Amino acid sequence: MPPKVSPLAPERFPEIPAVAGVRVATGSCGVRYRGRTDLMLVELAPTTSVAGTLTRSLTASAPVEWCRRSLPGGARGLVVNSGNANAFTGWAGTKAVEQTVEAAADVLGCRAGEVFVASTGVIGEPLPADKIVVTLPALAKSLGAGKWEEAARAIMTTDTFPKGAARTARIGGEAVTIAGIAKGSGMIAPDMATMLAFIFTDAAIPARVLQAIVGPAVDRSFNSITVDSDTSTSDTVLVFATGAGTKHPPATDAAEPLLVDFRAKLEEVMVDLAQQVVRDGEGASKFITVTVTGAADDRAARRIALAIANSPLVKTAIAGGDANWGRVVMAIGKAGERADRDKLAIRMGGVQIAKDGSVVPGYDEAPVVEHVRGRDVVIETDVGIGQGRATVWTCDLTHGYIDINADYRS
Amino acid sequence: MPPKVSPLAPERFPEIPAVAGVRVATGSCGVRYRGRTDLMLVELAPTTSVAGTLTRSLTASAPVEWCRRSLPGGARGLVVNSGNANAFTGWAGTKAVEQTVEAAADVLGCRAGEVFVASTGVIGEPLPADKIVVTLPALAKSLGAGKWEEAARAIMTTDTFPKGAARTARIGGEAVTIAGIAKGSGMIAPDMATMLAFIFTDAAIPARVLQAIVGPAVDRSFNSITVDSDTSTSDTVLVFATGAGTKHPPATDAAEPLLVDFRAKLEEVMVDLAQQVVRDGEGASKFITVTVTGAADDRAARRIALAIANSPLVKTAIAGGDANWGRVVMAIGKAGERADRDKLAIRMGGVQIAKDGSVVPGYDEAPVVEHVRGRDVVIETDVGIGQGRATVWTCDLTHGYIDINADYRS
Repeated sequence: MPPKVSPLAPERFPEIPAVAGVRVATGSCGVRYRGRTDLMLVELAPTTSVAGTLTRSLTASAPVEWCRRSLPGGARGLVVNSGNANAFTGWAGTKAVEQTVEAAADVLGCRAGEVFVASTGVIGEPLPADKIVVTLPALAKSLGAGKWEEAARAIMTTDTFPKGAARTARIGGEAVTIAGIAKGSGMIAPDMATMLAFIFTDAAIPARVLQAIVGPAVDRSFNSITVDSDTSTSDTVLVFATGAGTKHPPATDAAEPLLVDFRAKLEEVMVDLAQQVVRDGEGASKFITVTVTGAADDRAARRIALAIANSPLVKTAIAGGDANWGRVVMAIGKAGERADRDKLAIRMGGVQIAKDGSVVPGYDEAPVVEHVRGRDVVIETDVGIGQGRATVWTCDLTHGYIDINADYRS
Repeated sequence: MPPKVSPLAPERFPEIPAVAGVRVATGSCGVRYRGRTDLMLVELAPTTSVAGTLTRSLTASAPVEWCRRSLPGGARGLVVNSGNANAFTGWAGTKAVEQTVEAAADVLGCRAGEVFVASTGVIGEPLPADKIVVTLPALAKSLGAGKWEEAARAIMTTDTFPKGAARTARIGGEAVTIAGIAKGSGMIAPDMATMLAFIFTDAAIPARVLQAIVGPAVDRSFNSITVDSDTSTSDTVLVFATGAGTKHPPATDAAEPLLVDFRAKLEEVMVDLAQQVVRDGEGASKFITVTVTGAADDRAARRIALAIANSPLVKTAIAGGDANWGRVVMAIGKAGERADRDKLAIRMGGVQIAKDGSVVPGYDEAPVVEHVRGRDVVIETDVGIGQGRATVWTCDLTHGYIDINADYRS
C-alpha cells in the first residue's frame, strides 16, 4: 500500500525547466521494489564539473566512498538506485559499485571515473548490481530533457511525495537555470533511506569554485534540517554544472561579485529541497522553524538550534500543541555552546515569552497555545552572548513516527 | 490519576538498613502536588563530608548553582522538594534557595552553607519557598532513621515507582553501609523532572577523596544511562559520608587498596539506581543493554554506546520487536568516534549477526527476532580499533513516550 501523502506536502511538483547538457532516464530494474521505477540514469555534457558534500558517517556506504574519491572534479554520468543502500556490504559493495560505473561508462561512452553513483534503501544486504547493469542500456536509449518529476520519483524510498525545486540566476547578465531533485523523509528513513539531492545547472563553474560555493550552502540548507537526529550512511548532495549553452563571463573565484546571484539562488534551491525533506518527515504533522540569535558565532547558533530541533521533549510537546517553552530552555542548556542564562529570551509565534532569563511579567499563554496548535510553528531564542545566528527546520515527533519505525520490517 | 507502574519496575522497594549519622523526615508543603508528600529533610552528623556531580547544563537551576559552590566539602543537611524545579527563575530563584537553606540551617542548628538543596518539577515558575520554610520545623521534629522508602516517594515527580538500593562494603575489615535513593523517569521527565540521586554511607571519607571516587563511578552509572538524550537543568548526584560510628582505618587517597571494596560497592549502588531510572523510562516496555568493545578508549566506547542507545531509529525498532541491526551500524557511524567499518562486529542476544564489516554467511534472523521481542535486549558491538569498552543502558521508544510527553501539560 502506498503511504498516505504527508499533510505538509506541497500541492504539486513544481514546474522545472530542462537544463542544457542534462538528459535523464528512469526505469525499473527490480532491486527490491515491484511496480515502480527504481533506477535513474543521468547523462551530462562533456564540459560538466561536479562538487558535493557526503555523509560524515564513519560507516559510509560503498557509493559514498566512490564519490568521495572524485570530488570535486569532472562528471559525465550519474546512476542512482533505490531499494538497497549498498551499505555495510564489505568488499562485495565495492565490487557492485565498480560493476555499475563500468556499465554506465559503456552506455554513456565515458570513463568509469566520470560516473557518480548513489544508492538508497536497506543496508547490510548485497546489492544485485547485475540487475542495474542489464537495465542501463535500455535507459540510455530513453534519455531525455526535463524529466524531473519521474527522476524524483525513481529515487524515492519511503518518501510520500517527489521533491523538486528550481530557480533562475543571473551571471553577468546571462540567465542560467538551477534545477534539483531530492529524496529523504527522515535523516534516515525507515529503509535506512538517506537524504539524497542532485542539483543541475547549465552555468559554467570550475569544480573547485563550485565546491567552495556548495559547502557553505549545504551548511545553511541540508545541514540545517533534522527529523530524528540520525545520520545516514549514504547522505549525498551533488551539484553538477554543465556549462552547456551559456555565455556568461568565466567564473574564477567563489567570492567574486559575478557569482553573488548564482550563490543565492543555489542556496534557495537547496533550502527549498531541504525543507521538502522535513515536510516529508516520518509522521510529521507540523513544520517547525527554529531561529537562534545572540550566539558566540553562526556555528554555535546552529548547534543550539539543532539541540532544540532534535530534542524529543520539544518535538513531542509541539506535537501535542503544548507551548512548553521550559523544554526549549532545557535544550539550550544541553547544546554545549555558550549561553547567558540571565539574558535568555524566547519567543514562539512572535510572542515574547521569556526575557532576561525569566518569564515576562503577565505572560499570557493563550496566543502561544493557538500558534503551537497550528501547522507551522516558529521558535526564536536569543542567547545573549554575541552576534551568531542560524535557522534550522524540523518537524514534530508523533505517534506516526513510532508507527513507521517500529513496524516497517515486520 | 496515578500513572500505571512501569512494566520494568522491580517487584518491591528493597530492604535498606539505617545509616548511622543520617536521619530523614518527609512531609507535604503543597508546592504543587496535593495528597502526597513533596518535601524531604535530611539531617547529617557533624562529621559528614559530601561529594557530587551536577548537571552540565548551561541553563542550570538555582539549587544546582548553590550546590556547585560547596562541593566537595562538609554537609549537615539536605532539603529536596518536588513539584517545582526552581529553574529559569532568575534572581527570585536564588532568593528562594537562600530562604530554604537558612530555614533548614535554623531547624538543624548549622550554617546555611552546610545545607544542600535540590528541586524537581516544572521549570520557569517561581518556587514558593515560604511553603517550604513553614513546613521545615515540623519535619525537624519527625526526623528518624531508615525511612528510605518514604524519602524516595517524597522526591518523585512522574516516577511510577520509588527507587532505592543498598550494599555493605568492607573498609579494612570493618563493615560500612551504603544506601541510596533516586528519582527520574526520563533524562528529563515530563515535568522537567530531572534525575536526582542521594547516597549516604557511614564510612569516614574526606570530601576530596570522596569526590575522586564519585566522578568515575557516576560516569559508569548515571552518565551511562539515557532515556531520551535530553539533559535536565537540575540533574544532581550527591554522596554523603557521615563517618558516624565506624572504626575503619583512615582513608587518605581514592586509589588506595583500603577503598577497593568501598569503590566497587558504591558503583554498584549507583548502577542499581541508574538502571531503575531507565526501568521507569517514559513509556518504556523493554530494558536495553548496549556494550561496545574495541573502541579507541573507554570514553570513545561510551560515546558510541550512547549514540546507539540514543538513536530514535534503534529504539523504535526494538519497541517493534524488529532485529534491525542496520540501524546499529548507522548509529556507530554517526557517533563521531573511530570505528573500522571493515572490522565491525555486531551481536544481539548473544547471536553473531555481522563480522568483519558484513553480515555473517547464512545469518538466521529467527533467534534474534525472538530475543528482541523479549523484555531484556542486549546489543553488543566491536568496532575493531582498540581496547576501549563501555556498557550503557536505555529503554525503547514507544507510543507511551509520545502519550506522556505530548499531552502532560494540556
